[in-house]
Amino acid sequence: MTTLSVDAETARSDYAALVERGLFLDITRGKPSPRQLDLSNGMLGLPGDVFKAEDGTDVRNYGGLNGLAELRRLFSGFLQVPADQLLAAGNSSLELMHDSVVQAMLSALPGAERRWADEERVAFLCPVPGYDRHFALSERFGIELIQVPMTESGPDMDVVERLVAEDAGIKGIWCVPKYSNPDGTTYSDETVRRLAAMTTAAPDFRIFWDNAYAIHHLTDVEAPLADLLALCEENGNADRAFVFGSTSKVTLAGAGVGFFGASKANIAWWLGKIGKRTIGPDKINQLRHILFLKDEDGVRAHMRKHRELIAPKFDAVDRILTEELGGTGLASWTKPTGGYFISLTVVPGTAKEVVRLAKAAGIALTPAGATHPYGDDPEDKTIRIAPTFPELAEIEEAVKGLTVCVRLAAAERA
Amino acid sequence: MTTLSVDAETARSDYAALVERGLFLDITRGKPSPRQLDLSNGMLGLPGDVFKAEDGTDVRNYGGLNGLAELRRLFSGFLQVPADQLLAAGNSSLELMHDSVVQAMLSALPGAERRWADEERVAFLCPVPGYDRHFALSERFGIELIQVPMTESGPDMDVVERLVAEDAGIKGIWCVPKYSNPDGTTYSDETVRRLAAMTTAAPDFRIFWDNAYAIHHLTDVEAPLADLLALCEENGNADRAFVFGSTSKVTLAGAGVGFFGASKANIAWWLGKIGKRTIGPDKINQLRHILFLKDEDGVRAHMRKHRELIAPKFDAVDRILTEELGGTGLASWTKPTGGYFISLTVVPGTAKEVVRLAKAAGIALTPAGATHPYGDDPEDKTIRIAPTFPELAEIEEAVKGLTVCVRLAAAERA
Repeated sequence: MTTLSVDAETARSDYAALVERGLFLDITRGKPSPRQLDLSNGMLGLPGDVFKAEDGTDVRNYGGLNGLAELRRLFSGFLQVPADQLLAAGNSSLELMHDSVVQAMLSALPGAERRWADEERVAFLCPVPGYDRHFALSERFGIELIQVPMTESGPDMDVVERLVAEDAGIKGIWCVPKYSNPDGTTYSDETVRRLAAMTTAAPDFRIFWDNAYAIHHLTDVEAPLADLLALCEENGNADRAFVFGSTSKVTLAGAGVGFFGASKANIAWWLGKIGKRTIGPDKINQLRHILFLKDEDGVRAHMRKHRELIAPKFDAVDRILTEELGGTGLASWTKPTGGYFISLTVVPGTAKEVVRLAKAAGIALTPAGATHPYGDDPEDKTIRIAPTFPELAEIEEAVKGLTVCVRLAAAERA
Repeated sequence: MTTLSVDAETARSDYAALVERGLFLDITRGKPSPRQLDLSNGMLGLPGDVFKAEDGTDVRNYGGLNGLAELRRLFSGFLQVPADQLLAAGNSSLELMHDSVVQAMLSALPGAERRWADEERVAFLCPVPGYDRHFALSERFGIELIQVPMTESGPDMDVVERLVAEDAGIKGIWCVPKYSNPDGTTYSDETVRRLAAMTTAAPDFRIFWDNAYAIHHLTDVEAPLADLLALCEENGNADRAFVFGSTSKVTLAGAGVGFFGASKANIAWWLGKIGKRTIGPDKINQLRHILFLKDEDGVRAHMRKHRELIAPKFDAVDRILTEELGGTGLASWTKPTGGYFISLTVVPGTAKEVVRLAKAAGIALTPAGATHPYGDDPEDKTIRIAPTFPELAEIEEAVKGLTVCVRLAAAERA
């Protein structure tokens, strides 16, 4: 921040006018809008009268723990996991991440000396700002969360390498490597290589690679991402990567398909455990996805339709923030080329107050601090904006109101 | 067993003739047949163009951890759980049982002094014969399994009451209370009342009430089952019951809906944990079920169609066993009025050999011992027959072959 430019009087009267309007707007969560969901309405009548997989399996019956081969093949390239090491599961990748932690808590991972429940201490690194649901599921199991700053090329690898080399209690790191939540950052090749190659004190260290936005581009420049799984193998750390993905923001948010990919040893370990939990995923929904998306080109064409709906919303947020806060020194923000979020950095010590003011004016924002473990943003300056769900006019109005709150909070702090 | 009647010479030549035929038959698992699945083909094109729940929720998007209210209401009566204490979840009740154990391992249950992972010992009672998947998921977490004999009215309650009263390490009991797997027994009112009322040394004892066959009748006499949840509450043990059910054998085995019901305190505990795992179940599949099954009468009519397809198979098994083994003293078997299995009791010490002989003759049976924890049927006499999946002619042929193996194994042991 350089010179702060804020007129307290104007800020107060602008805020009073905002409250007067009695808005009721919500930009809290990264949900697809109804119009995005409409893009997949063609799935609602599928599979129609088909119920055989390509290998003749009757998808209506029990079985098929790995998921349908044709769907695993379709997403293999996008998720950078060989199809025979990729599993297609239920309607959520979050549950696959949760269950990976659970299984590691209750059974020794390949390479582990013991199960995590019997470790004195289990800690995970959390690049911040990051995704609150990663933090919540870790906290729930008593996992200690250690913040690592994000840079423009991903987590600060000097910090990561130092911590994992010296601390055998650090068992994992949460990563959203492409169009990260909430910064929109894509990890550089060098970052991915260092993650794959670094020396870890824990023999059972895992990278939780939540590739949630692998194909969720907002521009023609599709950010490339290095192949973590291949790099781990090349560097003698084949079992280090747990890769997650889903179609929740491709097809239908509540009825997508989650994917889990890893080394052959990890997958064998996982199937051995998860085979006690289920007789198989909903293969009909997987077949439905195949019939609807068809092939990689079909997926790409479908994602372009999403882009057409949401890119204007991201543009509007940037335009309004620029118009209202540009040059004031009161805020900076990210300009992501993919993903679901914009990260807004306000005057340190005011993020919580901005969110409070916005709420009082009828604009719901993700709680300040949610981007950090334990809800603790040490500088109280990060706000996550989720522009996808509201209509364009609503997002414009909400962000305009938000800038009033940013100015008022800064003025009152000054 | 009284007098055994078996002619070794005949048995050997019959078996040789059986092997000669080169059969390839499978009566291992309780799977619906393709014709049963055909009954639900009307679901494959649903929900068509509907995507709103009765309360206006867009079922395509995230959210709704409890599942659709209308589906919970529809199965509330069948599963004997008030709708607001019943959750509709993913495609499997097995995973709900597994996850209940996992959550109890990793977080103290209501009433518990500590989480199970921190207990010196966690044991479950297993009425035998019972369901192998219950045993497998327990064994996987190091839970000690203690056999309790089944009687005609359910588990031997004198044994159950004595064990749970004196041993605080016993944290649960696995029950399939209606048309039990594999006996077909329905627990008497008195058994259910005693389970609800008994004194347990463990403050966090749970009854895992796998009501898998709640509406799976094979005759006009629909076996009544006492209301465990209500009885637990009446007896001051409201939190004792975990109730499970699913539509896997109502609609589609791979794409049904699992249910979990319990006391309000248990449900609040569960949602608090599971809310870290998922943003909600596949509500579209739940809506699909509502549109297809419609109401309780719709469910009953649908189940009658299942009965029409599978009752003749059960009748055939009974007829052939009677023709081939009746009066020989070589075997006894159950005549269930519901559920998916027939339990065949052969000459002690021969069940494994019968299964081996059958396999060598091309007839796949569930491994002997699978009906007991650790695969250990102490008298080696129980064989589970699953008549639903094969066509009628196949099941007749398989059971006829099986009786040859029963006779030969008995003869060779004699």
